[in-house]
Amino acid sequence: MAAEVNRQWRLASRPRGTAAEAAFSYHEEPRPAVADGQFLVRTLYVALDPELRERITGSAERPAPAADSSRDTLAPDDAPLTSACRDPSRDTLPPEDGPPLSIGAVMRGPALGQVVESRHRGFAAGDFVSGLLGWQDYNTSDGSGEVHVQRFEPVHPLPRYLGALGDGGLTAYFGMLEVARPRAGETVVVSGAAGAAGATAAQIAKIRQCRVIGVAGGTARRRRLTESLGLDAAVDGRPEDLGERLRALCPGGVDVCFADGEWRTVEVVLGHMATWGRIVLCGAIAGRGADRPRPGAADLARLVARRLRLEGFAARDYAPRFKEARRQLSAWLATGALRSCEDVREGFENVPRAFHGQRGGGGLGQVMVKLADPA
Amino acid sequence: MAAEVNRQWRLASRPRGTAAEAAFSYHEEPRPAVADGQFLVRTLYVALDPELRERITGSAERPAPAADSSRDTLAPDDAPLTSACRDPSRDTLPPEDGPPLSIGAVMRGPALGQVVESRHRGFAAGDFVSGLLGWQDYNTSDGSGEVHVQRFEPVHPLPRYLGALGDGGLTAYFGMLEVARPRAGETVVVSGAAGAAGATAAQIAKIRQCRVIGVAGGTARRRRLTESLGLDAAVDGRPEDLGERLRALCPGGVDVCFADGEWRTVEVVLGHMATWGRIVLCGAIAGRGADRPRPGAADLARLVARRLRLEGFAARDYAPRFKEARRQLSAWLATGALRSCEDVREGFENVPRAFHGQRGGGGLGQVMVKLADPA
Repeated sequence: MAAEVNRQWRLASRPRGTAAEAAFSYHEEPRPAVADGQFLVRTLYVALDPELRERITGSAERPAPAADSSRDTLAPDDAPLTSACRDPSRDTLPPEDGPPLSIGAVMRGPALGQVVESRHRGFAAGDFVSGLLGWQDYNTSDGSGEVHVQRFEPVHPLPRYLGALGDGGLTAYFGMLEVARPRAGETVVVSGAAGAAGATAAQIAKIRQCRVIGVAGGTARRRRLTESLGLDAAVDGRPEDLGERLRALCPGGVDVCFADGEWRTVEVVLGHMATWGRIVLCGAIAGRGADRPRPGAADLARLVARRLRLEGFAARDYAPRFKEARRQLSAWLATGALRSCEDVREGFENVPRAFHGQRGGGGLGQVMVKLADPA
Repeated sequence: MAAEVNRQWRLASRPRGTAAEAAFSYHEEPRPAVADGQFLVRTLYVALDPELRERITGSAERPAPAADSSRDTLAPDDAPLTSACRDPSRDTLPPEDGPPLSIGAVMRGPALGQVVESRHRGFAAGDFVSGLLGWQDYNTSDGSGEVHVQRFEPVHPLPRYLGALGDGGLTAYFGMLEVARPRAGETVVVSGAAGAAGATAAQIAKIRQCRVIGVAGGTARRRRLTESLGLDAAVDGRPEDLGERLRALCPGGVDVCFADGEWRTVEVVLGHMATWGRIVLCGAIAGRGADRPRPGAADLARLVARRLRLEGFAARDYAPRFKEARRQLSAWLATGALRSCEDVREGFENVPRAFHGQRGGGGLGQVMVKLADPA
């Protein structure tokens, strides 16, 4: 059943600018041997996440140096916590501020796999696992370290575990319910509504009985957002149109903006926020449009005039509550209140293309590539 | 005792730019007669607040038009509330977004007075009141309307009721305890630490056992902040020095920034925030430096990388809890845990000068002018 060759995509060159220029090289190695205390995982699905870019570019897409650049190397985290608690070893989200991937190393990201051979007492052949697997057919693991392998028992189709039950779903769950906290009847704008986090966040806001407007590119995608996912409206993100559309759709202003799209969308939404509005900034927004020096202080004066909250957020801070979140998301999937959408491609050879490529016509949700069927 | 002449400062010209260009004209009128259901208040102290500028300039120092300017006229507030509740009729803070003062009208602002004659069953001669009194010796009131007169029984020296027990104290109380919520051991930076809100906010953070660094201009003022108010350090706000000072003073980063000073200070502090830091933007910051298009998206990417919260805030949202706040502030004053600082000038003729003027050498806290002694 299991092939003897381990295909790999390795990082061939690190771009100075955007991750879009990253190049990967194809390699074949023998399937690795399993040492005592290890197990061998066959990769089934790999998720192509915007956050993966950080692992490639290193600091290039992290916050650009501020006026005061010497603090730009992030200091150790020592702040105490209340509701959130960061513990990256406990779940699959990538560790914070890890070093960028070395040139020549196998590219790595959120993935699903199945144990095909085990000399580890905690894992047995046939177990399904999620983790930061390499873009290769086989990963060995001792259950610790960078791979963060976790066992799970699938009750939903496998892609759900990288979609609504994966990082995107967790980001949506905590960003919407813990940071934005929308109340019934409020107006919620989700930017990047076609993405893994956005599509789930928009539906959670619907479950919370909000009016939900999704921002997404592409007519087909927008139609799916309203017709399949039940959003109240879906609008294009072009700044020249967005303002007018929001004015028409949200005469009472926007109460919540879940911002997982481009920064320029947030800029426009900011001008339409209602008093006491909340803008949740998800991780993926950081690298988008950081070259343009906005918004201005005028927009920030608006934060005061309207008493807005603008909050950066990372799901990994809530790792101790991932089980609770997955239980709820799974229940919503089971009842149909939540639809998981995944944009699944096929074939190992298509992984870099899926990473670099734009979405196709009507694709919604987490982009992933299927490498193999489970045993 | 009471004079027969009512001196007035009226708005003579509305500046197009900053309020600093506003001109006031001196008038004398006969002391007004008291109609049935009215009472006459003699003005004792008037507070010269940065927020008063809004009343003069109208929209000039409100948020400048964003890319989408047609929403700039603020829509009616209809958002539901949780912990905060806006009810401007219940206390002395100026009503939100009121129309700017007409040319020729008596200038108006937070003040203390004493009832000298009453034909109102709720007020008796000798009662002390606070409210939005005109810059004049006498105001008549029926207890309602724009003046928002409230009776109080002074147990502290009168200036305290415009200082730590006035708008500045309330802003400090709710901004620090409800929005910033500092925890013991955290590092707190207060910009505008010499101001009415800032000086109280810094002390509240000390009461909460934080390390507190005040940002203020002037060597004498900074010395008072550390020696009299017990701050751990006081630093100058010049951007070119501030970054270096913060780096040295806050090696673990800044957990809370209470921002009531200039916007450029916040920009610098933003670069030094620790993970999960909170930046509270108080009202007075809105108009300062709004002409300069910053911070850039790079700084906002930092909000995500460090999961910062940037929150606009107005004390008037907490009006139903003003009594609770004043009780606590008063208790802290009584025990000496909190020192109210006021920058008191004398003489009706000096009111416009105190409004326009820079602070003197070591002045801390609310700037006010004493017009008369109580009877």
